[in-house]
Amino acid sequence: MGSPSKKATVAPGPSDLSRLVDPESVAIIGASDRPGSLGARTVANLLDHSDFTGRPYLVSRTKKTIHGLPCHTSVLELPETPEVALLVVPAAQALTVLNECAEKGVRFAIVFTSGFGEMGEEGKRAEAEMARIGREAGMRIYGPNSPGLCNLNKRIGFMFSPSFHLDQRPGPIGLATQGGGIGRCFLQAMERGVGVGLWASTGNEVDLTVADFVRYYADADDISVIATTMEGIKNGPAFADAALYAAERGKPVIALKVGRSDYGARAVASHTGSLSGAAEVNSAVFRQVGIVEVDDMDELIDTAALFTRKRPTGREKVAVYGFSGGGCAMTADAIGSAGLELAEFSEKTLTRLGETLPDYAAVANPVDATSDILSRPEIGHESLRAVADDPDVGVVLYPFPCDYEELTGQIGASIAAVQGETETPILTVWMSDRLGAGYTELVEGGLVPVRSVRNGTKALQRWIERGRWNLDTGWRPIGTAAPGGEESGGERVTHTEPEAKELLARHGVAVPGSGVARTADEAVAVAERVGYPVVLKVVSARITHKTDVGGVAVGLADAGQVRAGLERIRESVTAARPDVPFDGVLVEAMAPAGIDVLVGVSRDPVFGPVMTFGLGGVLVELFQDVARRLLPLTPEQARALVEEPRCAALLRGVRGGAASDVDALVDLLVGVSRFVEVNGGAVEELELNPVRVLPAGRGVVALDAVLVTSGPLEGAK
Amino acid sequence: MGSPSKKATVAPGPSDLSRLVDPESVAIIGASDRPGSLGARTVANLLDHSDFTGRPYLVSRTKKTIHGLPCHTSVLELPETPEVALLVVPAAQALTVLNECAEKGVRFAIVFTSGFGEMGEEGKRAEAEMARIGREAGMRIYGPNSPGLCNLNKRIGFMFSPSFHLDQRPGPIGLATQGGGIGRCFLQAMERGVGVGLWASTGNEVDLTVADFVRYYADADDISVIATTMEGIKNGPAFADAALYAAERGKPVIALKVGRSDYGARAVASHTGSLSGAAEVNSAVFRQVGIVEVDDMDELIDTAALFTRKRPTGREKVAVYGFSGGGCAMTADAIGSAGLELAEFSEKTLTRLGETLPDYAAVANPVDATSDILSRPEIGHESLRAVADDPDVGVVLYPFPCDYEELTGQIGASIAAVQGETETPILTVWMSDRLGAGYTELVEGGLVPVRSVRNGTKALQRWIERGRWNLDTGWRPIGTAAPGGEESGGERVTHTEPEAKELLARHGVAVPGSGVARTADEAVAVAERVGYPVVLKVVSARITHKTDVGGVAVGLADAGQVRAGLERIRESVTAARPDVPFDGVLVEAMAPAGIDVLVGVSRDPVFGPVMTFGLGGVLVELFQDVARRLLPLTPEQARALVEEPRCAALLRGVRGGAASDVDALVDLLVGVSRFVEVNGGAVEELELNPVRVLPAGRGVVALDAVLVTSGPLEGAK
Repeated sequence: MGSPSKKATVAPGPSDLSRLVDPESVAIIGASDRPGSLGARTVANLLDHSDFTGRPYLVSRTKKTIHGLPCHTSVLELPETPEVALLVVPAAQALTVLNECAEKGVRFAIVFTSGFGEMGEEGKRAEAEMARIGREAGMRIYGPNSPGLCNLNKRIGFMFSPSFHLDQRPGPIGLATQGGGIGRCFLQAMERGVGVGLWASTGNEVDLTVADFVRYYADADDISVIATTMEGIKNGPAFADAALYAAERGKPVIALKVGRSDYGARAVASHTGSLSGAAEVNSAVFRQVGIVEVDDMDELIDTAALFTRKRPTGREKVAVYGFSGGGCAMTADAIGSAGLELAEFSEKTLTRLGETLPDYAAVANPVDATSDILSRPEIGHESLRAVADDPDVGVVLYPFPCDYEELTGQIGASIAAVQGETETPILTVWMSDRLGAGYTELVEGGLVPVRSVRNGTKALQRWIERGRWNLDTGWRPIGTAAPGGEESGGERVTHTEPEAKELLARHGVAVPGSGVARTADEAVAVAERVGYPVVLKVVSARITHKTDVGGVAVGLADAGQVRAGLERIRESVTAARPDVPFDGVLVEAMAPAGIDVLVGVSRDPVFGPVMTFGLGGVLVELFQDVARRLLPLTPEQARALVEEPRCAALLRGVRGGAASDVDALVDLLVGVSRFVEVNGGAVEELELNPVRVLPAGRGVVALDAVLVTSGPLEGAK
Repeated sequence: MGSPSKKATVAPGPSDLSRLVDPESVAIIGASDRPGSLGARTVANLLDHSDFTGRPYLVSRTKKTIHGLPCHTSVLELPETPEVALLVVPAAQALTVLNECAEKGVRFAIVFTSGFGEMGEEGKRAEAEMARIGREAGMRIYGPNSPGLCNLNKRIGFMFSPSFHLDQRPGPIGLATQGGGIGRCFLQAMERGVGVGLWASTGNEVDLTVADFVRYYADADDISVIATTMEGIKNGPAFADAALYAAERGKPVIALKVGRSDYGARAVASHTGSLSGAAEVNSAVFRQVGIVEVDDMDELIDTAALFTRKRPTGREKVAVYGFSGGGCAMTADAIGSAGLELAEFSEKTLTRLGETLPDYAAVANPVDATSDILSRPEIGHESLRAVADDPDVGVVLYPFPCDYEELTGQIGASIAAVQGETETPILTVWMSDRLGAGYTELVEGGLVPVRSVRNGTKALQRWIERGRWNLDTGWRPIGTAAPGGEESGGERVTHTEPEAKELLARHGVAVPGSGVARTADEAVAVAERVGYPVVLKVVSARITHKTDVGGVAVGLADAGQVRAGLERIRESVTAARPDVPFDGVLVEAMAPAGIDVLVGVSRDPVFGPVMTFGLGGVLVELFQDVARRLLPLTPEQARALVEEPRCAALLRGVRGGAASDVDALVDLLVGVSRFVEVNGGAVEELELNPVRVLPAGRGVVALDAVLVTSGPLEGAK
């Protein structure tokens, strides 16, 4: 063992990664001086291209000295316990070396080595062993299959990349990715002025995950915006919780999640061995916890960069300003198509613009200042300033369709000057593939130009939408255990409809008046109690489609019809399913007319119980008009869920139709949520289809219920 | 007058623009030598930066010589009639100079001058006068408010832009835009290897329009792909016809149409004074005539460039290949999300890849060749070649997430080498903002890299979809007159429901058995004839919402109910609308159950009569699930229209529901189309809502009909 006393003094808390990203001592295990080798590049990155002020150690089996530093044959031989160990060793040695690190008391092991979980079952077993070694020793593991980690704000790189020294522009963005090339793609946006303070690329995530870095960035003083690309999420609730933690600290999380299509999910499995949950669930959860989900790398970079410039309120209206009428028209069109609002200029602004710009300029929003400003940048400055000063303008979008050499250069400089005088962000769009002087001026002026109108519009849309998200009504997790992990493990049980309804009714879910009857006399007695007309439904956990076996009789208006209906059901069901004993019928009061909706709960393998809400019936399957939420739900969140699908308009009442009882529907959703919450991991699947929503003031009724559980239910006999 | 005999020998056909883009003689009217002036720049562009081999003439009121050439004081003084005149004169002089050009016999006048239609009514009047001058003299006018024209394949520029000499890369793309900056944006994609042979920027289009250039490019030997951006379309049918003309000649048209949102439409009006039709109609017409509509400039450029490399079949499956696992996963995901298909490699390909690439590479599609290929480009070459050779692969998408200097440079060169050996297009994606050696190699190798995975995927999607479009079933126009133009001009007449149904029935549109009745006896007689149950509806062209005034009685099963129903309607309607004389009721047989759809025809100001088809009822308003087609329709086109909305699944029969009589529905649509065609411009609006579609073999019935016409109808009394 190394020096436990020293180790104790520096030991960080298990999720405090500040000593991982800025340690006092680091060992490179597998150091080399063979040109181009990973070991040699890792040594060079730390010793030549970093401003590392701690103590470096090199471990090599074959070399005595490398780069002027003495080499040790094993981590066990080092004179002190390094806080961080970088493993640049072949896959076959990784477990042995990790064990040595654990024995020495290393706090953080960064495993570059690939060839584990992404290769199949054997690799997955090795990863499980890595996790065990780390867990038992209290050593956090980063990787394997990772390109490393860099702290650009302190200029420290634990990486083997030959590009480390080139891609260094400090900044307020904390970046967490699973892949290396994609992360470097983000870093190279430094060419447009995007600065990244820290980049973690967590690879196969046997221990430390993107979620851990989100949480670390949330606390880090030098980080204000968090950007991430993910292939899989190891623990959904922990990730959601980390994102909320960041949101509470005022730090937006922008995320690109790969695996939206089957192709993506399959590719991800072979790249980092990650499991993908349902993409729709993922997106719903991201919205719930205030994560800004984006569709591609450009959006990720541009949106993150915009957040570093100013925090949105959600009320921003856009001014479009430019010197090309066509570019302005196209940009205004994109703003409209994205559902964003153009600002309406005040009289004062219009006057200022009219006095400044030539007659043939367009001074309403969009402002086509015309190419006159190319030769007279001073009127460009004054008119752009007038637009930025307008009280209705929250942000200016400024398209440059093409490069005109020094002419656009002058304009670029003048925009940077205006930006120095105003708080209103000016988002410039350099559309041309010719990167001329104007582009350079914009980059050097800190304007971080985006590369297309579409990218600029998307970034604005994401930014403004996030401004509307409200932390106070944000979701709070039930717990942070991975849903796949600590299951009850019990057998799956499909409940009968009356059982399911009774369980739900205990949590305030409205169900029809009903009773179970085995004989005609019992059935009539229930019918008299709940009131005619009634419906009869065969009771059996083994019959899924009751109608298909003649197990349902509707609209029974008197005792005679009830008796006949029961007999008909008994005969049909016995004939169709002689294997199922006849256990009687559920007698229920029929509900009045209303709008039928669907309420379901399923268990996402990544995030756990998720509610689905939408209109019931065949048309909605066609239009897939549903919305989803991770449970639990507060009444406010339930109301927002009801408002989300397009069919919400039907519940509000369209074409003179009456409004429906949305309050009662909200109560029902909250009741279902409570039922799921109370029963922990036992609810596997729940479907209420349809729930009938009656006119306002008259309530809702769950007309059917399918419930599948695993493990004991609260209060179940 | 000039020399009419000479003029006659060179006179081109009125729509043959070959002499406009490559004339024997050109006059610059408003030539100047004042540095930076439009006149001076136009002179320099023609004399210094063009390879113009014809005879140039300069016209200046004040100068004797410019640029070593003698100046004339007027176009009338020139020794010969120039084929083309460039007007670089103030707006106030434009009409005078145009008149002189007409008098001289000039064939083509290019008017750079701005300050006309885009400025308001006075400018529009001046434009009308320009059009008149041109029409009467047989002189074609290009502009005004135009940056000019350039023929880069012959290196001839009729332009005032200071950038003309910089933005010259010949190529097979014919570009037509309305704005100048946007067109130049396209030209500057030459930095990525995109070549443009001809660029026309038609400005306010008093005469020559984008459509004229589409038609010219369709015939031009040096152009194989046509790209266009448009703010407005002057004559919709003529444009559609030009696009079909190009399609017949095997030249795809890629179009970006501004004005999809209200903001865009408004901005367009102030930029080029263009009128926007409905964006949905525009998109439907584009699809019909095989125009590839795109959403933004990147898509326009990237899609056009892809078409220049190879023509699609529509059956292309995609291989994703790269050296970054994350980049490959993200790209495969984008392919799946776009609805494209990944190729399945043959055993032979898999074996070749397995033998070539390291063990930890992913050899299924997507192929993650790993960063090993950076240091061993020969295995990159061999494995990429194996993928391109696979029989299931129609195109390869190759993402470069980042620049690694000479390493990615080698790979870029190796891709270019592979492309030289295979017919399979390799579409490379340079994702990084760092434009390193790899980017340069790709550009120089003719691979025309796109700048994001999203852009590459979009281009592939547009390309493959166009491959599926079939010219044989393409639409053919009724005529090429602008729909706003030669109207009958008659008064708008709203027909009564029985009138409308009778007119439609003559063209084979199925309507219920019916008759009009003024008395109870008459009503009963009709009912006995058409069969019970019947519906009664008040007959009046002045009552739009019959139900609101109690003007409808449904489900009348016998003579007594018919008598009572008629009386009830008479009383309600008389009470609600004492101003409207009671003209009787329409007695109709009630239709059996079926699926209710909506069939409408409206008149788009740009394109003329357009049919809308979708599901009837309230839900569809919510989901806006309709499709549109420009009329007329063949049976094949009608069937495609019925198949387009999502609700088509209902007609096919979902969840065990019976299939509906789609054949009869197709007949009805064709009948409606014929009715509109026969009645020329007289049909202003037609709505059949609902049309009930009965189960297969049982037909359709138009249950309601609203018809508004202007002018005489064929066969109307």
